Amino acid sequence: MPTTKILLDESEIPTHWYNVISDLPNPPAPYLTPDGKPLTPDMMTSIFAPALVEQEMSTQRWIPIPEEVREIYRLWRPSPLYRAHRFEAALGTPAKIYYKYEGVSPAGSHKPNSAVAQAYYNKIAGIKRLATETGAGQWGSALALAGQMFGLSVRVYMVKVSYQQKPFRRSMMETWGAEVIPSPSQLTQAGRQALAKDPDCPGSLGMAISEAVEEAASRPDTNYTLGSVLNHVLLHQTIIGQETRKQLEQVGDYPDVIFAPCGGGSNVGGMMFPFLADKAAGKAIRLVPVEPTSCPTLTRGHYAYDFGDSAGLTPLMLMFTLGHDFLPPSIHAGGLRYHGDSALVSQLCHDGILEPIAVPQLATFQAGILFAKTEGILPAPESNHAICAAMEEALQCKQTGEPKTILFTLSGHGHFDLASYDKYLAGELSDLDYPAETLQQSLQNLPNITRS
Amino acid sequence: MPTTKILLDESEIPTHWYNVISDLPNPPAPYLTPDGKPLTPDMMTSIFAPALVEQEMSTQRWIPIPEEVREIYRLWRPSPLYRAHRFEAALGTPAKIYYKYEGVSPAGSHKPNSAVAQAYYNKIAGIKRLATETGAGQWGSALALAGQMFGLSVRVYMVKVSYQQKPFRRSMMETWGAEVIPSPSQLTQAGRQALAKDPDCPGSLGMAISEAVEEAASRPDTNYTLGSVLNHVLLHQTIIGQETRKQLEQVGDYPDVIFAPCGGGSNVGGMMFPFLADKAAGKAIRLVPVEPTSCPTLTRGHYAYDFGDSAGLTPLMLMFTLGHDFLPPSIHAGGLRYHGDSALVSQLCHDGILEPIAVPQLATFQAGILFAKTEGILPAPESNHAICAAMEEALQCKQTGEPKTILFTLSGHGHFDLASYDKYLAGELSDLDYPAETLQQSLQNLPNITRS
Repeated sequence: MPTTKILLDESEIPTHWYNVISDLPNPPAPYLTPDGKPLTPDMMTSIFAPALVEQEMSTQRWIPIPEEVREIYRLWRPSPLYRAHRFEAALGTPAKIYYKYEGVSPAGSHKPNSAVAQAYYNKIAGIKRLATETGAGQWGSALALAGQMFGLSVRVYMVKVSYQQKPFRRSMMETWGAEVIPSPSQLTQAGRQALAKDPDCPGSLGMAISEAVEEAASRPDTNYTLGSVLNHVLLHQTIIGQETRKQLEQVGDYPDVIFAPCGGGSNVGGMMFPFLADKAAGKAIRLVPVEPTSCPTLTRGHYAYDFGDSAGLTPLMLMFTLGHDFLPPSIHAGGLRYHGDSALVSQLCHDGILEPIAVPQLATFQAGILFAKTEGILPAPESNHAICAAMEEALQCKQTGEPKTILFTLSGHGHFDLASYDKYLAGELSDLDYPAETLQQSLQNLPNITRS
Repeated sequence: MPTTKILLDESEIPTHWYNVISDLPNPPAPYLTPDGKPLTPDMMTSIFAPALVEQEMSTQRWIPIPEEVREIYRLWRPSPLYRAHRFEAALGTPAKIYYKYEGVSPAGSHKPNSAVAQAYYNKIAGIKRLATETGAGQWGSALALAGQMFGLSVRVYMVKVSYQQKPFRRSMMETWGAEVIPSPSQLTQAGRQALAKDPDCPGSLGMAISEAVEEAASRPDTNYTLGSVLNHVLLHQTIIGQETRKQLEQVGDYPDVIFAPCGGGSNVGGMMFPFLADKAAGKAIRLVPVEPTSCPTLTRGHYAYDFGDSAGLTPLMLMFTLGHDFLPPSIHAGGLRYHGDSALVSQLCHDGILEPIAVPQLATFQAGILFAKTEGILPAPESNHAICAAMEEALQCKQTGEPKTILFTLSGHGHFDLASYDKYLAGELSDLDYPAETLQQSLQNLPNITRS
């Protein structure tokens, strides 16, 4: 019987993170302050641990993973690489489909890969508390877990509507000892202002970011952490792609195409960056970030300097963006509802090295349910985007007869997302798409800054 | 760094189930009909697949696992054995603590080990539909998954109060294609009678069993399945203990004591039966089923013939029981709320080979939360019972200085049980214990049958 799970021993957890900046064909554009000047490391260390700021700006190819971080990784890593025999059979495809399953972490997604590293570096910098935001709850859970592992207090500003609709993500964070605050709250100036305007304000990721940043900036014992977008977050995630390469080598295979869901870019960077050198060396490999048509940052956004949050408090980054005041509709893949994207992922898309696509919501659930019925694992709605793209590729192979090797990241399980499955099964979900004019509107408000 | 996860390759999934009946010091007592006559295989095949009835009564020591079943097991098995380094450190114990983690199955518990086997044997018997009941939802989820894997329709009668309180377990079953009916329902005579008496009846496991059995008995295309208690269910679970033995050998260790949560006995049988021969051969190993003080079947029940369900529709089994009309209070470890226990587990307790204990609810949550904070995994409330017992043993070792080897079954994750954690953290849970008179009451209604 052919292998189903390709496992690595925990001694094979990568010893270094891979820094793609060292291999980019073009140097990355600097982050800018709102008045257009390059951001200095000093400005970042007021809310980030020094080691993380160093990683954010590093050009060193391989950055060693501290033993203390690898020790925590051992609780669930290396994660398994699966050959999707039963999914392939259901599709009747000649393609081979592999998926790297990151849902085995205690928090249920790939997010702890960076949360553990961030908690560690803050701990050794003498920081006692971490503040962060969470939308769907995956990053908040990951940081709650990681903070607990290193004895740090964690406060999570959770978008109020999620706080109310997803009580179990909140309970999970509280069980790991974190404090969860519905945002907007009375604890920050940003929150109080929002509540003064509208006491029933449901909150947004942008608002929660503002509250967490404000708290970190105003308390010397507290730092801020972010679960995606930034270079150091994508750096930490590269253990995913490194492990996957080893696992595929073990069965003598190599992907023709890789799919990963894309919101802020941590999945894409984590899986794809370790394959970029091969592509640069002429290997025929397609690297495809998959985003929702309802938030089509990479496929329909502008490549321009923009803020990372909706209120305009963060530095400016050169990235694909739909405009920082673009409000994505409430599709159920909460992790993919972001107006912008990682600067590194954006640049690689701009340079034609990554080839993003967008898929509509209903197709992602259809694919996810077929996957659950054949492979057993119930995927997160975010992961369904990658499954959907992999399925379409496999069905094309069926038509052409090509036995391609398809790889995708199954970034998490859907145990806390069953309300979305319910709605899909009840026929209450729909696809969302935008006429060009709608997107044009939010794109008009981009900051008037061009790359120097 | 010492190993954290002890893994086996999927080629090492056991090839046989271990049938403890072949090694019992005393032969098991026969199942009886309500009038006291031994149950014949014919009576069982009206609702069970013939191969399962054969296994129920078999005295063969090793029963081969069909390749089709092992193929599905490969989706998550062998499950990992963990060394609980961080939990040990938090307790400051000289003991070594290992746990076998069964929450890696797609349904999140050990239940699919038997569900897959039961679905397979029904499939090859030409059965098209399966009917079953579920309380907390773990067995229903497992059967929904297993039915889907073999193309069988599954109908799950879910205790109405659980159906309403645990909508996500229901969604999970529906995503895998099962039909979930709140019980009591209008679909069966038993259900209609209950609703006629009380239209707002919240249901009970006993009622749901009656509905599923009635449906299976009245439809030739439909069979009934059960997730615990019966010999063949415990048989299928013995892969847990077999894998664990191998994993411990790999690190050169052997347990001084094993703990497993005990409701109907499938965890206990699964983990402990494969260690019984060693004990019989004189090995000093303690085998300890752990039950809640609020449903103290093994520690305070009678060893007597009793019905398996509350309505008295099932055969009579010689077992420890609190009386078939004992209504356990709504503690949150739903899987441990059963008035009786597996006949095999009961007999081994009666013979002094298994040494059951009972633990109170608050202590189980306290232990489970310390475990989650150190090992990361958020355990099911049922599993917390084993964690609690392991923790007490480890703390005793701290006092005596003994470096014992402690092993327990972490039977599932708690992703669908966070409402219970919420209540615990809010101080809304309490311990439950019974004055002797209360237990005496339900024990008065035992059927007047003694072993022939």
